Amino acid sequence: MDLEQLIRDVPDFPKPGIVFKDITPLLANAKALSFAADTLAKSIDDDQKIDKVIGIESRGFILGPMIAERLNAGFIPVRKKGKLPFTVVSKTYQLEYGEDTLEIHTDAIQQGDRVLIHDDVLATGGTAQAVCELVNSCGGIIVGCNFIMELSFLNGRAKLPSELKALITY
Amino acid sequence: MDLEQLIRDVPDFPKPGIVFKDITPLLANAKALSFAADTLAKSIDDDQKIDKVIGIESRGFILGPMIAERLNAGFIPVRKKGKLPFTVVSKTYQLEYGEDTLEIHTDAIQQGDRVLIHDDVLATGGTAQAVCELVNSCGGIIVGCNFIMELSFLNGRAKLPSELKALITY
Repeated sequence: MDLEQLIRDVPDFPKPGIVFKDITPLLANAKALSFAADTLAKSIDDDQKIDKVIGIESRGFILGPMIAERLNAGFIPVRKKGKLPFTVVSKTYQLEYGEDTLEIHTDAIQQGDRVLIHDDVLATGGTAQAVCELVNSCGGIIVGCNFIMELSFLNGRAKLPSELKALITY
Repeated sequence: MDLEQLIRDVPDFPKPGIVFKDITPLLANAKALSFAADTLAKSIDDDQKIDKVIGIESRGFILGPMIAERLNAGFIPVRKKGKLPFTVVSKTYQLEYGEDTLEIHTDAIQQGDRVLIHDDVLATGGTAQAVCELVNSCGGIIVGCNFIMELSFLNGRAKLPSELKALITY
């Protein structure tokens, strides 16, 4: 199934000169939605038990739980600062301009849990790298990271574990 | 399956005196996650064709796509102001203090589409009511609204269509 034809280019979003890759036509297509989750779940070998799938706020919440269900895993949200209600572990990381903070509940990952990280887009890799550090600090084992899209010219892949899958690469 | 035992009370979040109902233990439980999506999807009669399931940012993004898949429907995100990249229809509504704005892409709902609206919590109903108005203004037909939890003492139900389902009622 050609998912790329369901990604829409939106010029000048979020700011002038940026061409945003819009996944909403893919999500609105029932077959493409299932196919995307199937393909990302199948990128994990059958002998690789996954305990938890992390989705990164907020577009990572869309396919993350669908992937988790296919792998018989629980779903764990990683959110921006101040959004999770229980006690959290935080990680602040650098953006191109400024910084951002991500949080995970302290009881989300158990020591030795095998974890798959999902987000919609891999760009510079800073966000996913911060999530990897959160998982490590909770005692989890990162089995892989996957994405709907990889913007390969930004080389985010260099910051992440070798088990990395994207449905579409630009 | 008793989902209520997987909802955690977190006192004083997001502000002192509020007891927040935390769904993350439910999401982290693979069986409960599937059961929740199953039950909400089954609340729609088999003869009620659904074209689109809307999830409201951001916790509505978690079960919304799982419900959409079960109903062979597409998934449509409704987001806060400025987050959706393409042209949008906006709706500003009153909160207890101040106001908020929700947006949907102009091409998300086709005239006559049969729409199910999903969010994690029904509280005062202001948010879901605003989404109903967005759907109506796009020419969609609201078949129902569903939620993981309903805070019935806030009577949000009075603002919404009669086809309303919640997994847990407080």
